[in-house]
Order: sequence, then C-alpha cells, then structure tokens
Amino acid sequence: MSLIVQKYGGSSVANPDLIKNVAKRIVESYKQGNQMIVVVSAMGNTTDHLIDLMGNITDNPDPREVDMLLTTGEQVSIALLTMAIQADGYPAISLTGSQLKIKTNEQYNQAVIKDVDTTRLKKELAENKIVIVAGFQGVNDNNDFTTLGRGGSDTTAVAVAAAVNADRCEIYSDVAGVYTADPQLVKSASKLDYISYEEMLELANLGANVLHPRAVELANKYKLSLYIASSFNQLKGTIVRGDAQMETKKDVIGAASDVGEIKITVEKIPDEPGIAGKLFTPLATAGVNVDMIIQNLQHNGLNDITFTINYEQEKLAISVLEKLKAKLNFKTYNVDQHVAKISIVGAGMIATPGIAARMFTALGNNNINIEMITTSEIKVSCLINKDYAVKALNVIHKEFDLDKINN
Amino acid sequence: MSLIVQKYGGSSVANPDLIKNVAKRIVESYKQGNQMIVVVSAMGNTTDHLIDLMGNITDNPDPREVDMLLTTGEQVSIALLTMAIQADGYPAISLTGSQLKIKTNEQYNQAVIKDVDTTRLKKELAENKIVIVAGFQGVNDNNDFTTLGRGGSDTTAVAVAAAVNADRCEIYSDVAGVYTADPQLVKSASKLDYISYEEMLELANLGANVLHPRAVELANKYKLSLYIASSFNQLKGTIVRGDAQMETKKDVIGAASDVGEIKITVEKIPDEPGIAGKLFTPLATAGVNVDMIIQNLQHNGLNDITFTINYEQEKLAISVLEKLKAKLNFKTYNVDQHVAKISIVGAGMIATPGIAARMFTALGNNNINIEMITTSEIKVSCLINKDYAVKALNVIHKEFDLDKINN
Repeated sequence: MSLIVQKYGGSSVANPDLIKNVAKRIVESYKQGNQMIVVVSAMGNTTDHLIDLMGNITDNPDPREVDMLLTTGEQVSIALLTMAIQADGYPAISLTGSQLKIKTNEQYNQAVIKDVDTTRLKKELAENKIVIVAGFQGVNDNNDFTTLGRGGSDTTAVAVAAAVNADRCEIYSDVAGVYTADPQLVKSASKLDYISYEEMLELANLGANVLHPRAVELANKYKLSLYIASSFNQLKGTIVRGDAQMETKKDVIGAASDVGEIKITVEKIPDEPGIAGKLFTPLATAGVNVDMIIQNLQHNGLNDITFTINYEQEKLAISVLEKLKAKLNFKTYNVDQHVAKISIVGAGMIATPGIAARMFTALGNNNINIEMITTSEIKVSCLINKDYAVKALNVIHKEFDLDKINN
Repeated sequence: MSLIVQKYGGSSVANPDLIKNVAKRIVESYKQGNQMIVVVSAMGNTTDHLIDLMGNITDNPDPREVDMLLTTGEQVSIALLTMAIQADGYPAISLTGSQLKIKTNEQYNQAVIKDVDTTRLKKELAENKIVIVAGFQGVNDNNDFTTLGRGGSDTTAVAVAAAVNADRCEIYSDVAGVYTADPQLVKSASKLDYISYEEMLELANLGANVLHPRAVELANKYKLSLYIASSFNQLKGTIVRGDAQMETKKDVIGAASDVGEIKITVEKIPDEPGIAGKLFTPLATAGVNVDMIIQNLQHNGLNDITFTINYEQEKLAISVLEKLKAKLNFKTYNVDQHVAKISIVGAGMIATPGIAARMFTALGNNNINIEMITTSEIKVSCLINKDYAVKALNVIHKEFDLDKINN
C-alpha cells in the first residue's frame, strides 16, 4: 500500500464529464490498495469568471476579499469531485484549505505555506476515505482565507505530499509531460522520461507551463519525486527527481523561447565606481525584476548599460529611469520590445565544455544575430530579434539532437 | 448610535449593479452613525446553477458535500458586496459562517443554529467596520460547513441580531412588505404597517413568501422586532413585532390561498377505538406532514377519514397507505389533487365571535363549496375546489375589508 498525492489542474475538471473521468482515475488507483489524497484546482475558467464579476465592482479590490472570492472556485470543484467518487461507490470527503489547516503567512493573493496540519487528513485516511483537498488556498493565523498565487495548486500538492511523507506525488493536467521544447513551436519536440529539479526549475522559469517553479523548489527541498502527466490519456509522463538518481546527465535536455521580455538600454551614462548599483538598486526597490544585464564601457568614458525585464513592468521601470536621469547624469534610454530570449538547459553542461559555443555557432550559421548573452551553471540564454524566435528554437533543438533525447 | 442588522435576499444582489445599489443603502445607514452587520444570500440564481452542476454528477449527493458546494454561493456575494462598500470608501470585512462561528448541529442541508459566537463580530465592529456575513450557512462541531435549509438567510439575520442584541433587524428583498393577500392574486391587496409574530407565522406557513417561519419563531423567542421592506425602493415596509405593542388587534389582517396541498380520503375503514392513531402514527413516522383532518363516522359503523398533505409527499403517503390496507382493513382511498386551502389570519379573531361564520357565508353566497374546515386561535382555513381559489381569495379579502386595513 502506497500513500499517493495526486493533483488535477483546472482543465482536467473543467466540466461534469471531466470530473467524472478524473473520479474514475482516482478510484482506479484507490482500488489497487493505495491511500489517496487528491488536490484539485478550480474548474476550467471559474477563476476568470469570478475575476470578471469582481471587475464589475471595483478596479482596486482589497486583497483579503479577492481571496475570499477566489477560494470558492476550488471549494466547488472539491465538492463535485467528491460526489463523483461517492457516486462510483467509494468513500471520499472534501476539505478546504482552512479545514485542512494549510497554514500560510498573511500575504493575501500570494501567500506562502508555513505548515500543513495533518491531523484531519490522517483521521480521514484512517477511515479509508479518499481525501479531496482544495488547491491554491490556505488560511492565516487570523482564520482568514489566503491564496497562493500562480502555480498555487501545484504547490499545495507538493506541500501536502511532503507533510504526509507521501510515496508519490503525481501532477495531472492537459500537458502530457515535460518536453524538450514547446511542441507548438517545435514539431519534433520529444517528451522527457526524466528531468532533474534544477533543470525543471530553469525550464519552468523560462515559461514551460508544466509545473510552477515554487512547486519544483519545494519538491527539491523535500527530495520528493514528481510525476507529470496528462489526465486525458494513459500515456507515460515525465518524472522530476534529484540529480543523483539520473543515469547520465545529458548536456542539454531542453530549449525554450521567451517572448515576454523587453530590452532597455541606458545610453551614455558617465562611468564612475558603483554606477551599476546606483542604477539597479532603485529599480529593485521599485519592484522591477531585472533578468539579463550587460555593461559596455565606451572609449569616451561613457557607459551603455542594457538590461531586460518582463514586458509587464515597462511602465514601472520607465518611471524609475525618469527619476534617475538627472541624478545619474544620463540623457536618454531606449526600449526595445522586439526581442526574444532563446535558452538551452541541461545539468550536464557544467561538465561539458563548448556547449554555449555550439549554440552561438548554430545561431550564427543561420544568420541569427545575438544581442545579449547570459549563462548559469545549467543554462545558456541568448537575446535575439523576436522575428527569429521560432527559427532559433528549432535550430538549437536540432543542434543538440533534442528530438532523439530519450533514445 | 444604533446597532443594525440588515439582510439582503438573493434577488437584491443578483448582479454587480444591484450589489453596488445595496452597498449604497448600507453606507447610507452607516453614515448616520450606526454600527452595521449585513447578512447576504447567494446572488440570484447561483444556488440553482450549483444544483444543476451537481445534477450532472449524481442524483444522490452526500448532504455534507452538498453543503460544501452550496456555501460557496454566499461566500461569493459577501466578498463582492464588501468590495463594493470599500470601493465607496468605507471600511468593511466579509465573514463566512465558519469564520463567524455560527455553530449549528450536525444536520447537513437543514442545520439548526445552536450558538452565534460574537467574538470576531465584535472585534470587527470595534474597528468601525461594516461586517458582511454569509447567510444560510454555519459550521458544526467537526468544523464542517452546514446550511440551514429554506429561509436560512432570514434565520441567520435574526440569530445574529439576537446574539448581538441589535437595536433593529431589517429584512430586505424584492418583496415590499407583508400584504393582506398576494398582490398577484388580489389587486386591491394592501401592505400592512404592522403584524404580530403569531399572525406572520400563520401567513408564512400559508406560503406568504416574505419571511421564513423559522426566522419568525426565532424573532418571537427573542422579542426582536423585524422590519420587512424592498431593497429596490425607499417605500415603507412592514414591522413584525409582539402583540403587546399593537394598538388594536385586528380581527383579520390577511388572507391566503395555498394550492400546494392534496386531499386523501381513506374510505370505509372499520370504526374501532384508536383507529385515527393507527392511521396517522405510521404516516408521521414515515415523515408525512398531515395538515387538515376530518373523520366522518357513517351509520354502518364504517369511517371515512380525510386529510391533506403537501403535494410533494403524495408518493410517500401512498406507500404508507398501501402497507396499512390489510392491517386496518380498508379497501380503498382516493387522492384529490384539485383542491386549494383558503385561509384568513388575525390575532383579534379570538375575541370576536362570528369571524369564521362570516367567511363560510361569504364563500357560500358566491357558490363556493367548502370541503374541509380547520381553525386555530388566529386562523380559519377552508379547503375548496382549486378552480375557485382566486375567486374565493378575492371574496374573503373584500368581506373583511382588507383593502382598507391601514386606514
């Protein structure tokens, strides 16, 4: 007998028929003698519907009341899924975040889980019940409802699995697993059998919409293996696990294209010690997340400093730069929205020299100009013209034979 | 400064515009220096929508999960109403039944309030907040969510008002107050300025859809005056209060027609001591609520026993009668679905002889045959052919000058 935590995303429970389908999958596992805890998201577009309703009331809602509103979404889906399991003749019970006592900090809309009280959970499991848990939500010390922000249900599943020391944690959605690249952009993209936490984290941060980085970090912290697969079929998915378990570390396991960043260049800023700090500290203080940075000292003692940020923060960044103009004595800056970040990820590249060079050469051979470069131990990213994003992704996917990765 | 409890029904908060309208009414009262607690129902047809969803999953849902599902309805409306008040610039906070600790018994779907914990409520009021409370719901000792059944939000409002010893309890809906008869059936029906608990209780039990009998009983128990009015205008409503406060007890204050009952006649049942008990005890045990009863001993020692029940319990009653046939030695029974119960209500009729006779005479003068009669201290009911229901209602409304009642 294993203790299994499963998580089903919103698209997997988007309507009554899909809910019944998920119920059958859960029962299948339960009938094999497993103890089952199932974390569920809100049905399909429920959250969007609630946000629309809210938009008709106010543009500036109180974060506490937003969470009061949004937590109803999962409460509906856990009740319906529990009924579907019971209708199939198996015992089940639903629990909200507050009933299960998923304790979070006070930060509404993006709360962080502090602790999962397993008392109620274990009581219900001991009565042989399948326990259906509301994802995405918790409760703070004031007994007010909180939500965990993006990727919240994944995080709930991993946190609950860690708290009960589950044997397995399975994440089901409409995505069949982790691919070497977005299959919509790269036709020959292949599904990975295994991926390490670190690689998954890089891919997730690069926008691979499979598993939220928070959930990956938490799984890594508790060394909890995750299984990512589709709820719509029985195809084999991807296992996310620690490096030590990997047979061989591949040089490159995936490639990604991110078109969500913009490039800002601050021109002709007089060089002086600490000038980068004087530029980036106010940006950070204002909440601007800077990704790539290059500083280029010209022969005339003037610097060009270029950096990228998420396109959503353009206005915020510009308001900071306008205030800094006089203080840092620069005259102008350019914003380039027409960029894409192409990345390769692989835990093996640390030990294999020349991986980055192969990427640069492949892009160059295809006349794709590289504007900026950043590297981490297991990732290389190049900023290029947005027009070439899909081409570049396919070029490097081919260069590193990612279509044959599991062979 | 008064402490006011207001309750708004589902039709009063059916969409964002109506929610904003209700917010303005609440703020108006708050600006006059009152402390405000507001109990809200689920928006318009939310509950129907949830029941539809559930119907696609199972025909036989677990009552606990039904309440898990349905309690989301009010949670949505309290969040949105709170946001609307905050958007108007006033402090507000929403609380679910479980957060406020409206403690109920274990009876899912029709739970009874045992206690209202006022700790959180008083804390929020002390911070000058308008407190928005989810109606219809509570929490049992196991921290599971319960609902109060029909009229639940009215009951919540009265229970909360009693717990905090409120100065006023105001019930707003799409109904403008208590009328002498259903204005849709009697054109000249007039709105009452005052009504006693007992009269309100009789009218509510007769189907006047203004205030649930449970809420009236609770208000009577705590001697809490209720004000019933429309949330869609500023017209004067009806005050429900104790008899002692009434200037004069009117003979008849209202008339009602109830077409929700059916008449069952058990024919030729041999007369013996206790025969009525032998018939009605099994019916009661099975959960059949019997309303009117007549027993008619024929000269041949055989009884005809006739009674009325709610039409929804026809199948249940018949299954009991089928089992009793042999035991009580009767051969046949008739079911007549074509009946209506016409009633008059008035606390003054106890002291005024001849009220019932006036009703019978008026009906007879209009060729309306009376099939059964029951009376209580403040009510007379006649069962007639359903075809004459509206006519009969208008006849007795005129007979007792109910169109001129407040003059």
